Amino acid sequence: GVNPDLASERQTASFSVEKLTAWLDGGAEHTRLRRAVVEAIECDPVFSRENQYFQSQNERYEAAVRKAVYLKKKMHEMGWSENGPEFKYIYRAVSGDIAFLLHRIFIRSISVLGSDKQIAKWIPLASQYQLIGSYAQTELGHGTYLQGLETTAVFDITTQEFILNTPKISAMKWWPGDMGRSATHTVVFAQLYIHGKCYGVHPFIVQIRSLQDHSLCPGITAGDIGPKMNFEHIDNGYLMLQNVRVPRENMLNKFCEVQPDGTYVRRGSPKINYFTMTTVRISLISDEVVTPLMKACTIAIRYSVVRRQSKLKPGEQEAKILDYQTQQEKLLPPLAAAYAFYFVNNYLQELFNSAYREIQRKNFDLLPELHALSSGFKALITQYCTSGVKTCLQACGGHGYSLLSGLPSLYTKILASCIYEGENTILFLQTARFLIKCFMAASTGQSLPPSVTYLAAVKPEKCPAKNKLDFLSPDIYTEAYQHTAVRLISSTAAKLQDLIQSGVKKHNAWNQCTVQLVQAAKAHCHYITVKNFAETVEKLETMTGIQKIMKHLCDLFALHGIFSNAGVFLHDGYISGAQMDMVTASYLDLLAIIRKDAVPLVDAFDFTDKSLNSALGSYDGQVYQRLYEWAQKSPTNKQMSPAYEKYLKPLLHNTLSKL
Amino acid sequence: GVNPDLASERQTASFSVEKLTAWLDGGAEHTRLRRAVVEAIECDPVFSRENQYFQSQNERYEAAVRKAVYLKKKMHEMGWSENGPEFKYIYRAVSGDIAFLLHRIFIRSISVLGSDKQIAKWIPLASQYQLIGSYAQTELGHGTYLQGLETTAVFDITTQEFILNTPKISAMKWWPGDMGRSATHTVVFAQLYIHGKCYGVHPFIVQIRSLQDHSLCPGITAGDIGPKMNFEHIDNGYLMLQNVRVPRENMLNKFCEVQPDGTYVRRGSPKINYFTMTTVRISLISDEVVTPLMKACTIAIRYSVVRRQSKLKPGEQEAKILDYQTQQEKLLPPLAAAYAFYFVNNYLQELFNSAYREIQRKNFDLLPELHALSSGFKALITQYCTSGVKTCLQACGGHGYSLLSGLPSLYTKILASCIYEGENTILFLQTARFLIKCFMAASTGQSLPPSVTYLAAVKPEKCPAKNKLDFLSPDIYTEAYQHTAVRLISSTAAKLQDLIQSGVKKHNAWNQCTVQLVQAAKAHCHYITVKNFAETVEKLETMTGIQKIMKHLCDLFALHGIFSNAGVFLHDGYISGAQMDMVTASYLDLLAIIRKDAVPLVDAFDFTDKSLNSALGSYDGQVYQRLYEWAQKSPTNKQMSPAYEKYLKPLLHNTLSKL
Repeated sequence: GVNPDLASERQTASFSVEKLTAWLDGGAEHTRLRRAVVEAIECDPVFSRENQYFQSQNERYEAAVRKAVYLKKKMHEMGWSENGPEFKYIYRAVSGDIAFLLHRIFIRSISVLGSDKQIAKWIPLASQYQLIGSYAQTELGHGTYLQGLETTAVFDITTQEFILNTPKISAMKWWPGDMGRSATHTVVFAQLYIHGKCYGVHPFIVQIRSLQDHSLCPGITAGDIGPKMNFEHIDNGYLMLQNVRVPRENMLNKFCEVQPDGTYVRRGSPKINYFTMTTVRISLISDEVVTPLMKACTIAIRYSVVRRQSKLKPGEQEAKILDYQTQQEKLLPPLAAAYAFYFVNNYLQELFNSAYREIQRKNFDLLPELHALSSGFKALITQYCTSGVKTCLQACGGHGYSLLSGLPSLYTKILASCIYEGENTILFLQTARFLIKCFMAASTGQSLPPSVTYLAAVKPEKCPAKNKLDFLSPDIYTEAYQHTAVRLISSTAAKLQDLIQSGVKKHNAWNQCTVQLVQAAKAHCHYITVKNFAETVEKLETMTGIQKIMKHLCDLFALHGIFSNAGVFLHDGYISGAQMDMVTASYLDLLAIIRKDAVPLVDAFDFTDKSLNSALGSYDGQVYQRLYEWAQKSPTNKQMSPAYEKYLKPLLHNTLSKL
Repeated sequence: GVNPDLASERQTASFSVEKLTAWLDGGAEHTRLRRAVVEAIECDPVFSRENQYFQSQNERYEAAVRKAVYLKKKMHEMGWSENGPEFKYIYRAVSGDIAFLLHRIFIRSISVLGSDKQIAKWIPLASQYQLIGSYAQTELGHGTYLQGLETTAVFDITTQEFILNTPKISAMKWWPGDMGRSATHTVVFAQLYIHGKCYGVHPFIVQIRSLQDHSLCPGITAGDIGPKMNFEHIDNGYLMLQNVRVPRENMLNKFCEVQPDGTYVRRGSPKINYFTMTTVRISLISDEVVTPLMKACTIAIRYSVVRRQSKLKPGEQEAKILDYQTQQEKLLPPLAAAYAFYFVNNYLQELFNSAYREIQRKNFDLLPELHALSSGFKALITQYCTSGVKTCLQACGGHGYSLLSGLPSLYTKILASCIYEGENTILFLQTARFLIKCFMAASTGQSLPPSVTYLAAVKPEKCPAKNKLDFLSPDIYTEAYQHTAVRLISSTAAKLQDLIQSGVKKHNAWNQCTVQLVQAAKAHCHYITVKNFAETVEKLETMTGIQKIMKHLCDLFALHGIFSNAGVFLHDGYISGAQMDMVTASYLDLLAIIRKDAVPLVDAFDFTDKSLNSALGSYDGQVYQRLYEWAQKSPTNKQMSPAYEKYLKPLLHNTLSKL
């Protein structure tokens, strides 16, 4: 049965959980389909994650390969296809715990960067798993700065081949997934040399293992990069190349080609490479970043109404820890953030879709804005959600620290999202570069992309709020965010110009402003997030109950941001100290209001117990029983103490014998 | 040889690294002794941590027991004793990676809470390892709130025994170290019942395993609590008791006793229990919190002068990443914090020593202040240092995420320090309760303990700084911290009073102020830290070079705190927006200054390569070579892909066969 302390939370929901779930899914029919996919996967023991927290890296890897192989079979059985509506739910159903993700990137990179002929040759082989692909870009010595890659591909005109080498240790490919022990082929990014001249980084298809016995091909050294904070299931590998020859046809040549006589030809816009990266950044936000935060909130909030500790009032029963203001302050802002970023993800998807439509018409005008937004939002959302998951973990105290809570693995995995697909600081700086450019353009009266038109608008000097209720008006707080973003962008632009005018070289001046440029980029993305949340709430007019609670969450997200970044709002007096006290009062009031719906709000995310894989977060709230039962399954409880015969017994007995 | 990019950093040190090391150690003779102890431990392969990152929980546990048993032998050989000057260096030398730490707490609890007779009986047995002890306080259902513990000890007058029970699942002991598979005895905290009346929580010595064959004693269920984020080497266990009988003499009875007829007698002050907790909180700051941050800074800063990525200036060589302002902003504030908290730890130790002298004279007056400070500082320092280690990890990008960097294990371990020995939020609230009390006392003219006398002083209304250089004056910034602490304490006290006067019940009013009370407690501890750092620098007048760089670090620590908590300083206009710009300018200037000495400043911490156990942080800076070599040792590289025969081969070959 359900723990009564959890059951009672569900009886007082101010809205229909099922309706909210359906709305989040984009309609009840999507909810049905999602549940059917999840059910089909979870009822199959092949996909079980039951013993995951006890497994070694080798065991996790083997299980991930097993699941990938069986998924292929399952999809065939169920009639699911990669392009079908079910596919997006499969990844959720397996919680990303599966191999061959890089095989998919291998396929995508050939589809995007390969010629029709290359596509015709390689895609069928890859799709039918006649080979296993990987994607070898990052090196030991270079990650984000791709121009610095050191792997070389020298064109040999006599044999019509490229000779690939990793000429020094730092040139070794390092981190590529599916590569250490699985892949037979990979796309290698290398500096192209023709007649001694370097043409920059290009992609080459290289076979690394025998299709017959999986032995390494001549000139190839490859293996696993060793233990990581998470991703034990992913086969991250290293790769060294020593005079490895591939035919001229193996350079992906949709956009550039080396002709038989060594002539280098470039076709089309190199900007399209941006677009691939942009795709990946946007696609990871939902599955790898927002979903883990939603799971963490579900676990921590359910636990916080089951856990009773200390007394609010002497003589009473011990209180649910979620009734403490400090616990609400830990868990409810991340909950609001999970909703905020879920909605921003929709906004980015729409922006992406319209940009993609334009690109198909050969119009690349939206690319800079899309690149700037996807970079900044990738950085903001990964940082915010990572911090939120950490807060959820810590808010569960010692039990959160147990792997059995599910929180440590959510946390150590999401932490990587701040690093991969572009290090966050560098991404913020790319957004900042765009913002500074737009700000300069605005000051000379040029037109601006839609997301930054606000940089040109005239704003009031002071926040007009007169009491704490005024701060529950989306216009009031959205305007405050906008004002702050403009101020940070304009003051940094001014500092940059001052430095340059005072004789500091441009690149030095830029470096001296980067701490503030990052702040400005964050403020911009934060503003768009708040604005988008408020607009999303407005559109909910036909669903009164849901609109009301979403409005509270939107207010909370916005006011929490002002409360916890008070300095940037107070700096020029746009918000006064007295107004900041109103913000604080309204913010703290909202905590108490939203607390009442906290459990329904996480129930609406509709995660199954198997998907949460948490002793603390299950729907029935039987946390202590489950912690105890799960601990019994640990390999540490399968035998007598492994130290007893060797160390403990001699220690205790030697001493005993001396008596 | 040393990587030239690292070697060059050492040639330009503005001070003598060896002198700074000696000063940090408290004199060159301490440095010599420390190095001798570390050398003696590290040269013995029994204590090797070489394969630690590849080991399972069972292997880590077994290794920790092995080391503990051999340490006993080693200490005997070397003539080291637990009370000798070498002892404090041993823990550093083994990096805490050792068993029987709770055995030591077992001994300490009997020494503090046991009668002379009990001490005479148990301490020799424990010291000679004729038993292995543990300390069973925390339960599945209760951690911080000890009054809520559910284990019972009922006095049976007929047999003169206590009957111990864990009557429900939440009463099960959970987390105690050395208990799951090692201990033969433990101190169990249980609610004492005599003739049906509850006398609260008391400690009882209980044997849980046979001294002959290590089997569990009748009525005992015990085992391992399963996998955790770290502490695989610690034998955290669970314990259930079912009608377990211990003689009356097994209740630790220095301060209270049950007489044969069931009469309950209390002796002395129960406050002394506080003092034990205080001891533990203070003693963990150095070893478990500040040292890991120092190690993380050493690793990340050395790596950041070896890693080159992208170009500051077109056409130049790629830049060391530490030359980027954003990287300095990540790593130098944590470095300054490591020094700041190292010095605060000295301050707390002195406070502790004088309080202890007073206690020995039966004067308990210093206890409330010591308890408040040790609680708040434990919370502030663990939170700050945990966040610093995380920043170091992320600042190393993908390589920081590899376990081989050493950073993940430092991080996952220090993260626990925010939870154990008192959850941080609750500790801050204890400090806040003390501060509010003192503030009220000050307003009625009563005298205050030394650390809070500032609450009674009259302060200027505005910060007098006129330019950015003024903010390099310790008086200016210390005063700003003091002002802010007073403001936060007084405004929260006022809110509390307003609520109570408006009719809100006292405990509700307190709960409604807790978010702000936590802020106030942090501000107080932050202020003391800055003040103590400034005073420490002042005393360095005879060591000019060191004083100069320590002054820079002190300034950086202080200004970083203002910059990153700008809101609380701007709130009432004590610091204006224009002054905040000066703070920012001075802060950013300091980053560039301290960057030059960054490597010497971490070299001075004097960690050996074995102690750092990091592929990125070694003294010679050969990071890429070492990452590659260490990865070879991973069990993932010891065999053909464990998935090949079972899954990959059938996948590839089945498909091949269909061709």
